[in-house]
Amino acid sequence: MLDVELAWLHVLAEAGLVAPEVPAAAAPACQAARYDLGGLAARAAGGGNPVIPLLADLRALVRETSPEAAAVVHKAATSQDILDSALMLMASRALQVILADARSTVDALAALADEHRHTPAVARTLTQHSLPTTFGLRAAQWLHGIGAATAALDSAAARLPLQWGGASGTLAALSTAAARGGPGTAGALELSDMLAARLGLAAAPAPWQANRLPVTGLGAALADLLAAAGKMANDVLLMSRPEIAEVSEPRAAGRGGSSAMPQKQNPVLSVLIRSAALAAPGHGVQLQTAAATADDDRPAGSWHVEWQALRSLLRLAGGAAAKLAELSAGLTVHTDSLHRNLEAAGPLVLSEKLMSTVAPLLDDDGGPGSGKARLQELVSKSLATGEDFAGLLRDALPVTVLSDEALAAELDPANYLGESSALIDRIIAAYPGRN
Amino acid sequence: MLDVELAWLHVLAEAGLVAPEVPAAAAPACQAARYDLGGLAARAAGGGNPVIPLLADLRALVRETSPEAAAVVHKAATSQDILDSALMLMASRALQVILADARSTVDALAALADEHRHTPAVARTLTQHSLPTTFGLRAAQWLHGIGAATAALDSAAARLPLQWGGASGTLAALSTAAARGGPGTAGALELSDMLAARLGLAAAPAPWQANRLPVTGLGAALADLLAAAGKMANDVLLMSRPEIAEVSEPRAAGRGGSSAMPQKQNPVLSVLIRSAALAAPGHGVQLQTAAATADDDRPAGSWHVEWQALRSLLRLAGGAAAKLAELSAGLTVHTDSLHRNLEAAGPLVLSEKLMSTVAPLLDDDGGPGSGKARLQELVSKSLATGEDFAGLLRDALPVTVLSDEALAAELDPANYLGESSALIDRIIAAYPGRN
Amino acid sequence: MLDVELAWLHVLAEAGLVAPEVPAAAAPACQAARYDLGGLAARAAGGGNPVIPLLADLRALVRETSPEAAAVVHKAATSQDILDSALMLMASRALQVILADARSTVDALAALADEHRHTPAVARTLTQHSLPTTFGLRAAQWLHGIGAATAALDSAAARLPLQWGGASGTLAALSTAAARGGPGTAGALELSDMLAARLGLAAAPAPWQANRLPVTGLGAALADLLAAAGKMANDVLLMSRPEIAEVSEPRAAGRGGSSAMPQKQNPVLSVLIRSAALAAPGHGVQLQTAAATADDDRPAGSWHVEWQALRSLLRLAGGAAAKLAELSAGLTVHTDSLHRNLEAAGPLVLSEKLMSTVAPLLDDDGGPGSGKARLQELVSKSLATGEDFAGLLRDALPVTVLSDEALAAELDPANYLGESSALIDRIIAAYPGRN
Amino acid sequence: MLDVELAWLHVLAEAGLVAPEVPAAAAPACQAARYDLGGLAARAAGGGNPVIPLLADLRALVRETSPEAAAVVHKAATSQDILDSALMLMASRALQVILADARSTVDALAALADEHRHTPAVARTLTQHSLPTTFGLRAAQWLHGIGAATAALDSAAARLPLQWGGASGTLAALSTAAARGGPGTAGALELSDMLAARLGLAAAPAPWQANRLPVTGLGAALADLLAAAGKMANDVLLMSRPEIAEVSEPRAAGRGGSSAMPQKQNPVLSVLIRSAALAAPGHGVQLQTAAATADDDRPAGSWHVEWQALRSLLRLAGGAAAKLAELSAGLTVHTDSLHRNLEAAGPLVLSEKLMSTVAPLLDDDGGPGSGKARLQELVSKSLATGEDFAGLLRDALPVTVLSDEALAAELDPANYLGESSALIDRIIAAYPGRN
Repeated sequence: MLDVELAWLHVLAEAGLVAPEVPAAAAPACQAARYDLGGLAARAAGGGNPVIPLLADLRALVRETSPEAAAVVHKAATSQDILDSALMLMASRALQVILADARSTVDALAALADEHRHTPAVARTLTQHSLPTTFGLRAAQWLHGIGAATAALDSAAARLPLQWGGASGTLAALSTAAARGGPGTAGALELSDMLAARLGLAAAPAPWQANRLPVTGLGAALADLLAAAGKMANDVLLMSRPEIAEVSEPRAAGRGGSSAMPQKQNPVLSVLIRSAALAAPGHGVQLQTAAATADDDRPAGSWHVEWQALRSLLRLAGGAAAKLAELSAGLTVHTDSLHRNLEAAGPLVLSEKLMSTVAPLLDDDGGPGSGKARLQELVSKSLATGEDFAGLLRDALPVTVLSDEALAAELDPANYLGESSALIDRIIAAYPGRN
Repeated sequence: MLDVELAWLHVLAEAGLVAPEVPAAAAPACQAARYDLGGLAARAAGGGNPVIPLLADLRALVRETSPEAAAVVHKAATSQDILDSALMLMASRALQVILADARSTVDALAALADEHRHTPAVARTLTQHSLPTTFGLRAAQWLHGIGAATAALDSAAARLPLQWGGASGTLAALSTAAARGGPGTAGALELSDMLAARLGLAAAPAPWQANRLPVTGLGAALADLLAAAGKMANDVLLMSRPEIAEVSEPRAAGRGGSSAMPQKQNPVLSVLIRSAALAAPGHGVQLQTAAATADDDRPAGSWHVEWQALRSLLRLAGGAAAKLAELSAGLTVHTDSLHRNLEAAGPLVLSEKLMSTVAPLLDDDGGPGSGKARLQELVSKSLATGEDFAGLLRDALPVTVLSDEALAAELDPANYLGESSALIDRIIAAYPGRN
Repeated sequence: MLDVELAWLHVLAEAGLVAPEVPAAAAPACQAARYDLGGLAARAAGGGNPVIPLLADLRALVRETSPEAAAVVHKAATSQDILDSALMLMASRALQVILADARSTVDALAALADEHRHTPAVARTLTQHSLPTTFGLRAAQWLHGIGAATAALDSAAARLPLQWGGASGTLAALSTAAARGGPGTAGALELSDMLAARLGLAAAPAPWQANRLPVTGLGAALADLLAAAGKMANDVLLMSRPEIAEVSEPRAAGRGGSSAMPQKQNPVLSVLIRSAALAAPGHGVQLQTAAATADDDRPAGSWHVEWQALRSLLRLAGGAAAKLAELSAGLTVHTDSLHRNLEAAGPLVLSEKLMSTVAPLLDDDGGPGSGKARLQELVSKSLATGEDFAGLLRDALPVTVLSDEALAAELDPANYLGESSALIDRIIAAYPGRN
Repeated sequence: MLDVELAWLHVLAEAGLVAPEVPAAAAPACQAARYDLGGLAARAAGGGNPVIPLLADLRALVRETSPEAAAVVHKAATSQDILDSALMLMASRALQVILADARSTVDALAALADEHRHTPAVARTLTQHSLPTTFGLRAAQWLHGIGAATAALDSAAARLPLQWGGASGTLAALSTAAARGGPGTAGALELSDMLAARLGLAAAPAPWQANRLPVTGLGAALADLLAAAGKMANDVLLMSRPEIAEVSEPRAAGRGGSSAMPQKQNPVLSVLIRSAALAAPGHGVQLQTAAATADDDRPAGSWHVEWQALRSLLRLAGGAAAKLAELSAGLTVHTDSLHRNLEAAGPLVLSEKLMSTVAPLLDDDGGPGSGKARLQELVSKSLATGEDFAGLLRDALPVTVLSDEALAAELDPANYLGESSALIDRIIAAYPGRN
């Protein structure tokens, strides 16, 4: 908020609407460390927002050295202009950090996907083993989500707009001030666009004091990053379970311990990422509700909801992104377990394939298609009795129809990985990361 | 959390499971002011919760004076036991403050309703004038919501349970420790119930490390108070509008001002109450989602969502309740405006009544019921042309059928207030407040 | 809605306010099958609710046989009275079905918990193996959540109130009508309470047209049942995974198949229960937002949000409860897998216990407490190298200090189940089910 | 879903992977009217989704005329491919209707804003009169929100992607089938892109069976349109209140009536738009939660949440957009009331301006700035006593300092409208509508 007030003085000085020395005179007072935050918070309730007491303190501080500068601080602005623009500025700064971590994650996942593009794994759908896949494709799918969210957030970051409308969105006070500036003075809209440029924010077509889509849009982009992060965390949590053991989180001193059980090594990065992802939708609903209940030229209550909600989303995204970067850079992949789990899944995970490749060889008097029913019977028998499906299939198929070698090839999961490698390439190409 | 750790040492000492001097030796270390909160927060990420670093610091502090006491701090407990129970304890303390303000509100609204039980007002449904009512009934309806929410929250406060289960909800370590206590030593469940009693919490049937309805239930009760508060705030905001002007918020120094417009007097109490009410559902959704996604014997991520969400709800409810108490005690009722708005609504707000009392007098050749159609025509004509409805009605009804006095009585809103006074009594009786 | 309209005619007839034959004359028209639902829905937009067109059709149908009865249909009522009370009536009926299934679930889980009170299992916290527990306690914890939610829903079902206030909550029209009934006629509030009794609903202190806690309260109770159901489903989904295989869902013809993979047997009951649990919080937020944004004597928009939200929650709860009943009655428990997973977890899951029982035996020159550090070293070594922890411990402890038998007893998970059996009893006692 | 199945057969036929006559043979069975929807819904629970029973019925119908075609229906697809792509297809079609209405609204609001660019009105912030503004700017601000949401939704509509991954996202079955097609046959990814083109959907980089951002993104765009619509509805509801009376909704036969009060004319369009806006965030939270809880290669439960949530959002947006179009085309603006309300607000709404223009003229011995304090005193005095502020100001300022004419100009609201007209132009230029 102090940065916005100061930048505005610079714009006014540049336009000749305040004396050239005003910004420098006010600058020392625009240091957050000089303010009593608790006191400001307590006084904020009086006017319903923190700008009013902040401004009183700011003016008092400036007045100590320059009464002239104090008199023009906040000129033609309203508290909502300061707060909204400060919120965007804070978001913009936070997003730089978040995006840096998100892009690191994109790079690490691309490397992970590429490294494991030929590491077979068992796919799981609705919790059950389904088909062979590769660990590389799984990592690429994490990238698919996180990369898409990162790109969208990057684009949202570039669109964060200044909000500048004066007391009721007409810019009347500023317009009046500009008019007194004489010929050649910048107009109110020009001044507002100059402020946007100075703060590194986008220029909006108009004030948006009661039109809150810039806030919901940012919230949705943050929630999307958190959702994509949550998906990856859910998978890492599952794959870190001792019975599955396909990955381990990177270890770090002081991490993952338990207060009671010395042997515990908890996947804390994923736990905290998942936690952030589960918390995000609640903050999203606050922003959406705030936007939907806005009223009048400046809203009575809904606006106030946004501050904590947006701040929480930024913090959750920041925490999650940092953990994602560490997690994806340091994830240990247990190829032995991946292999063991795929082995344990057995040839049944190839039954989809066999329906198209082997079932026709089983056709009998039932005519074309009857082989499918016979194959389904073998599957059911194996599931019911625990008998080895490969053996049942061998028994059902004369070697003259399908040799042992050919059957083995049919039953090799590595021969049923579809487009997994090409998909990895497409995903990596779609989301470039830092480079 | 420190209070829970210390209370537990008291229980253990009382049961003879630690030395009698342990609680006193540990007590000085159980002062929150002695801890570096920022450092704890930073280290909390390592284990995924703040208990682990807190415990390390607590033990270190106790160890300075009593290594023996340090060795038994947190005996047989797990971090979730401490955090969950501390959350309930914090909620219990916060609720005392919230409930005191809520009960003051109940009393103030009962007084307001009683005082204005005969103050006529125009009722509004779907934003339009509907019938006469009284301001007293409107205030009583605020009481209806806030009183019901207060009673439910009071009952929720009495049910807040201790959560105590040990590392995995079996109380195994405690059971082992108790067993070594020799004959006559309290059992693990008895010890846990003793701790509940000492902390003023309810005893749960069993640990609830992964069954989070105690948290959702508290959250729902808080959200209900906030919803009822929001309803009242919405009404006060509307009735404070200059065009309606039926009530004014109590004034206070430094409240309601604007950073730009010196004449503004904003209804800040209601603005902030409404804001809290709009924010609450988002936190409720976080608690419900956390409960619905809990898994295992202690959850990986969903548990962590609760802390901020519950804390936010308590803070929002606390802020709203304090403002409600002030608002309801100090609300200025403008009976002149109430009268003016009812007058302006005119006799059309009695059209429901006239349909049953006067329409039969208008029956003509169309037979019984035809009078309703004629009355509707008069209503439509008045609406369309702006002609005075009372005059149209007078013209349509011979004085022999309805005298001027009788017509005036029919058109007096004070004669159509239904059960408003009895309803005020029923509502006041249902929600007793402090007394 | 038709049932409410008809019940109201019965009350009016009983009170002598309409002719005795009116209810019978109107009854044939109060059959939902006689109405064009699509047409009603289309016309509902005109007045903003479906009562207005329904009433037009109802009156037209009654008029065919009894113009007198048609004239008094809906007497002194308003559309919101009908819709709110119909919503409560529908909820009441739906809850009978839901609660029957929920109580069956309670009984089945109690039986499951009791049957498996001595079936050892490995507990899991934050996804990792923690301590021994029993499958019985896990089932009891499902009961803990579902039983508590069922009891609360049962109590919510008994409190569902009639909503009856007339056009603006004053009962003015009814009061006028009752006053004309002559001496001895029931008053408006008495009539309203008679209607509540006839519909099997509770009598509210006052109309609640703009006080929506009866709706949020019901919604929260439904959401809690769904959250508890979700917890159980999450666990069943995990335990149904092939790598864990501790339980299987009951099979049924046509259930669990895949459109592509003939071998798949998906845990569909749990998938759908989990889905319902994840959907519920969003509907809860709709109800809470509706309550918080209510305004005026009857709200402009927020009221309309409730209908779909509450209906959706009832449907989700109904579907989930039916599936819960089937799932808990037919769950197959694989004790062999439970045993295998606990075995695989190894003696490290006893490390918490050993810290208190064995560590003191390891104390060395480091003095009391030094054994804990030595034990922690053994744990770390076993985790790092994969060496058998039991062997490391045996090597570290002379048999003279701890015999082989005593060490084996220390390392037997069955000796570290804490209060699991007593907790099962406490939980079963707390939630009685149908019996 | 039937359209997706049929389009897929066309692609397969085009690629030579099924016989050329298959699509025509299957087409007659791909008519939704031929299916028993209730029966499909009932059977859908078995497999957890409706594709499985639909496919059984589809195959049976096709088999009646062409067993060969029946055998290749759904070739290499999985149920989620069909359902996800059908959801996108349905969304795409629904969006055409929604966007047409939204663009009509944009045009109507642009016309309204332009027409009233010089119609003065009183601005309202936090419910209180603040400054002069114009009705045109208020309408332009509705356009600002709705226009931005429309543009974003338009762009979201163009990005709706096909979801096509086969049983586990590797496209293995399709890859196998394509490989058997011999040289020159399209590959699996090419086939999938052909399907996207045929259905008018975008081609995704990869299947997104467990990466749900395409769904959350669409949901957020719909929620944004509803939030912007809600903002306008809130304003229209307020401005339709009898005490304010600045606008009226367009009338239509059968709209806005009450079941009890013949004089009522409810602003039903806005009521229903507001209702839709309040319901939307709850559905958004369902989609975000679904995305955040996705797991595995295809999720167990979270996926299933999306169907109702997305369908509800489309329906709410469709209903709201149609009502918005009607509302904005037919809104009656009461310029007399706008004028009256601005007059009643009095010269105090110019106090911000006077602080900069007149206060310096009031400077006294207190030095520069002392005039501000004097002006503030006049404001306070007028507020406290009700004395006419213009009169107080006249008394305080000698006519030699400010002539009567100059004072009148200072107090004319039309001279303090700031950039309202330029802002209308900027907003209209930013959101082009249909033209």
